[in-house]
Amino acid sequence: MHYSSKLIERAVEEIAKLPGIGKKSALRIVLHLLKQDPKQSHQLAEALIQLRDNIQYCRECHNIADEALCYFCKDTRRRRDIICVVEHFKDIAAIERTGHYHGLYHVLGGLISPIDGVGPQDIHIESLLQRVRQGEVTEVILALSSTMEGDTTAFYLTKRLKEQQVKVTALARGVPIGSELEFTDELTLTRSLLGRTEF
Amino acid sequence: MHYSSKLIERAVEEIAKLPGIGKKSALRIVLHLLKQDPKQSHQLAEALIQLRDNIQYCRECHNIADEALCYFCKDTRRRRDIICVVEHFKDIAAIERTGHYHGLYHVLGGLISPIDGVGPQDIHIESLLQRVRQGEVTEVILALSSTMEGDTTAFYLTKRLKEQQVKVTALARGVPIGSELEFTDELTLTRSLLGRTEF
Ligand SMILES: [Zn+2]
Ligand SMILES: [Zn+2]
Repeated sequence: MHYSSKLIERAVEEIAKLPGIGKKSALRIVLHLLKQDPKQSHQLAEALIQLRDNIQYCRECHNIADEALCYFCKDTRRRRDIICVVEHFKDIAAIERTGHYHGLYHVLGGLISPIDGVGPQDIHIESLLQRVRQGEVTEVILALSSTMEGDTTAFYLTKRLKEQQVKVTALARGVPIGSELEFTDELTLTRSLLGRTEF
Repeated sequence: MHYSSKLIERAVEEIAKLPGIGKKSALRIVLHLLKQDPKQSHQLAEALIQLRDNIQYCRECHNIADEALCYFCKDTRRRRDIICVVEHFKDIAAIERTGHYHGLYHVLGGLISPIDGVGPQDIHIESLLQRVRQGEVTEVILALSSTMEGDTTAFYLTKRLKEQQVKVTALARGVPIGSELEFTDELTLTRSLLGRTEF
């Protein structure tokens, strides 16, 4: 396509790099922004820069965070005796949507997968054991996808956590087999959270 | 939705203001950007700011421009004896796609519409007459939508331009009646451009 403006061309190119946006939609966005107050483009640009430059990982739970501690670790109203272990920080949003969990989280950042060469040392397991070792935690909920990797990781974690006499539970198998946690509906997730089973 | 990060929340909010992007797609874009090199977010932000701050209107033809003169007015290889009059700068892209026009443009920025209170003085007609008055132009092509407003504007322009003994032509009525020029396919547009009729 020919835009007859390098400014438009460059903006379209950058916008079209985003997932789910083609060149046509990108041009529509550009023309829209040109019609709006310049403030809107500036606020969008500023939000993108702030996001990318200031996002960090929580030093406690490895969740995405605006500061050294994440939203949940900072919140003094959350129960500190229970930790919900998830693969990815996106999974936290799914658990939160149920409205039935008020403890802390721990983001593994992956799942054990021998085929892909991912071992226990490649994900945040040591820091989880460290948190439990401090003695405040009485229950660890494993909220992992019900895939082979999720089961392998759950099995490994249970073995390591049992050494520390902490109660280990897992989401009830209401989560459809073979499905990703991230895409599980709230009702199923609520039910499997309330009916969680001890390992 | 709850993002547990003000940085993410703000970015999602700003992105979701764009046309055709909901909160879900906006979050997908944010998570995508977080996975990419920070350079990508910075380039996107920079392109948006450059676009919004530096885009201007061509002082000759009112097309969108990166400098005082637009891409076409600056191009010395374009024929300067013929001007194609369009409503909106987006229409220029449609004409260019035909590959059959090599003259200059004039962007009216609207169409005469008594119902909407838009008169001849509200769109860029005086500067068109001024350009023709300079004597270099021998033909003015009216490439306006075949709507009531387009016809009204063409009628008015023809009357004013005829006073200056310039040849006035219009796109052949191959353009489907009642349709916007912007959405006309290239073949129809090519045919109506080649078969343009004199008013
Ligand atoms: Zn945290
Ligand atoms: Zn121009």
